[in-house]
Amino acid sequence: MQPDLLNHAHIASVLQHFRTHSTLVHCMTNDVVQTFTANVLLALGASPAMVIEREEAVQFSAIADALLVNVGTLTADRADAMRAAIHSANEAGKPWTLDPVAVGALDFRSRFCREILSLHPAAIRGNASEIMALAGVSAGGRGVDTTDSASAARPAAEQLARETGAVVAVTGEVDYVTDGNRTLKVIGGAPIMTRIVGTGCALSAVVAASCALPGERLVNVAAASGLFAQAGGEAASESRGPGSFVAAFLDALYHLDGGALA
Amino acid sequence: MQPDLLNHAHIASVLQHFRTHSTLVHCMTNDVVQTFTANVLLALGASPAMVIEREEAVQFSAIADALLVNVGTLTADRADAMRAAIHSANEAGKPWTLDPVAVGALDFRSRFCREILSLHPAAIRGNASEIMALAGVSAGGRGVDTTDSASAARPAAEQLARETGAVVAVTGEVDYVTDGNRTLKVIGGAPIMTRIVGTGCALSAVVAASCALPGERLVNVAAASGLFAQAGGEAASESRGPGSFVAAFLDALYHLDGGALA
Amino acid sequence: MQPDLLNHAHIASVLQHFRTHSTLVHCMTNDVVQTFTANVLLALGASPAMVIEREEAVQFSAIADALLVNVGTLTADRADAMRAAIHSANEAGKPWTLDPVAVGALDFRSRFCREILSLHPAAIRGNASEIMALAGVSAGGRGVDTTDSASAARPAAEQLARETGAVVAVTGEVDYVTDGNRTLKVIGGAPIMTRIVGTGCALSAVVAASCALPGERLVNVAAASGLFAQAGGEAASESRGPGSFVAAFLDALYHLDGGALA
Repeated sequence: MQPDLLNHAHIASVLQHFRTHSTLVHCMTNDVVQTFTANVLLALGASPAMVIEREEAVQFSAIADALLVNVGTLTADRADAMRAAIHSANEAGKPWTLDPVAVGALDFRSRFCREILSLHPAAIRGNASEIMALAGVSAGGRGVDTTDSASAARPAAEQLARETGAVVAVTGEVDYVTDGNRTLKVIGGAPIMTRIVGTGCALSAVVAASCALPGERLVNVAAASGLFAQAGGEAASESRGPGSFVAAFLDALYHLDGGALA
Repeated sequence: MQPDLLNHAHIASVLQHFRTHSTLVHCMTNDVVQTFTANVLLALGASPAMVIEREEAVQFSAIADALLVNVGTLTADRADAMRAAIHSANEAGKPWTLDPVAVGALDFRSRFCREILSLHPAAIRGNASEIMALAGVSAGGRGVDTTDSASAARPAAEQLARETGAVVAVTGEVDYVTDGNRTLKVIGGAPIMTRIVGTGCALSAVVAASCALPGERLVNVAAASGLFAQAGGEAASESRGPGSFVAAFLDALYHLDGGALA
Repeated sequence: MQPDLLNHAHIASVLQHFRTHSTLVHCMTNDVVQTFTANVLLALGASPAMVIEREEAVQFSAIADALLVNVGTLTADRADAMRAAIHSANEAGKPWTLDPVAVGALDFRSRFCREILSLHPAAIRGNASEIMALAGVSAGGRGVDTTDSASAARPAAEQLARETGAVVAVTGEVDYVTDGNRTLKVIGGAPIMTRIVGTGCALSAVVAASCALPGERLVNVAAASGLFAQAGGEAASESRGPGSFVAAFLDALYHLDGGALA
């Protein structure tokens, strides 16, 4: 199937939902990106909370509006807590999102990701190598970096969406977001975003939040990518390097202008 | 009782103490705010160290000038280490400060916070919902966010101070700091501070450090809030959004002018 | 022996290697500095990955180009995983680097550091008190801060290099880098770097990466210090305090001009 370009009016509409819903996002994510992930969600009007002890994670997944599971610094204890939190979210009818960091490259997390893939994720966001490894069509990337292009991973993303029922976002120079029947293409962003840790992980948190907003899930997830692409482009043009980009990106997310977008 | 407005000369005096004492602060805090907490303490002239393994935490609590216990990403292992560190700090005569993040909303941390409340904290800092939950007068907030105003929590803060012997700071649009007999009011800050993760948690670390400085503890803790309010106001007027605010806030803390304050 | 001043042409050459080799660095580091460490490596063109579960750490140490072991927030579990990862790196012929944060001041990490010292580190980077404690000539610093000058620690660094076979870098106002036979001196940097958490820890990650680059290891490690000193000096002159320094430092690392350096 040919992908459609995401409509800018849809991005503006989802931005408006972010700013009015104060979505409570339960983030079970890796050690490296916690602060940036929280600040990205706050800049968009969402409310992040990181809760990790098994008992608390189970309790909080039923309270929060959405759950993020990111396996970047997975441990055996965290895997247990994540599994229990996913079951709790599912029982409470709350959507959960998977970020399969470096899946394929490392066996422990690969086994865990394949296992929880059967637990009905609402969305999955990864780079091309991660999505291809998760779909079983390649062996994964180099560390946390992709060795494939997003367009090469589009068929794998569509297959994964059909198999799991999740909306799958494969992000790179261009992003593709698919529910297995329809695929949206998101353009924008900036190359400097690959020189800052956590842009992909933070996008996954925004994807998780978007799954709790009103509207069609496919469009919401694509709009999350679109918000990142828009803010990333603005920030790149207003910063001098990766350090000043981080601040400019959060400022840009905070000030995104729905009217100008639409 | 009617609160008194904190005297600016007191803030200037405590600022001077921060810059000359190089207070060594043992931070047992959550995963999300570690970097920001350390940088805030460093900007004020204090010396942070995060030490978490039980054996080391016990040893270090007796060496450091002050201990911070923040339950934001509490686990069973960390609870054990924190409990042991508190006992060690108490034996060595070092003050410890509690930040009861999201107490009330989650059972595991609520039990832990109630238990350690009997271990003579020097200070407690929380938002309105946390202080009310800790005092037993409400059920807590929504995730890590408050659903109450600081002024509504003032009676609970005063009760908690009388019951525990701690100086209690309830922070929000206005901050109230009380020892149960006398209450100081701190104004300033900026709304953007709620859109950055860790401002409350970092303030708790500064409160912890202030408890090791010379002078009256009530005034020291209120002055810690006053330093944040002053730097927050300056940074808000010099930044364009939450990203640039973080840098501007650390710069403002570093350059706070005691003479101008007084 | 008299130290030689590091040649700027060597710094430029190592910078060029960083930008062309995309060195994959397995970072087992402390909770406080993860984001900054990753962003520093990315700014120089290296590729960081934090992998901590024992099984995964063993697998990844053999895949990555270099391993960093930083004991800042050591726990018993992490010590086990680090030990196993070091053995795996050694078997695969990959260099590993030790950052002995606060060694001497705390017993648990001191025992661990002395134990792994026999496992053939390629490089060791610490402040003066840490290097002296590791060499057995003093008891360590105050928390994570040094109480000695780098020049006072130079003999200890040279002894430690001869005993372990590692290149040892002792950093402070001036940095000394030695293989036990020859010592290089690196000047530059800025005092503000001690008011930001993680500059030393991030330098250790760059040292770890430098050990996987072509060329003489002594020169590579000294050049890693030289890159930090150069970027630190530039950033200090372009920033207003510790907050804006962080962004300016990452920007400066990203834009370092090899031609101007040489």
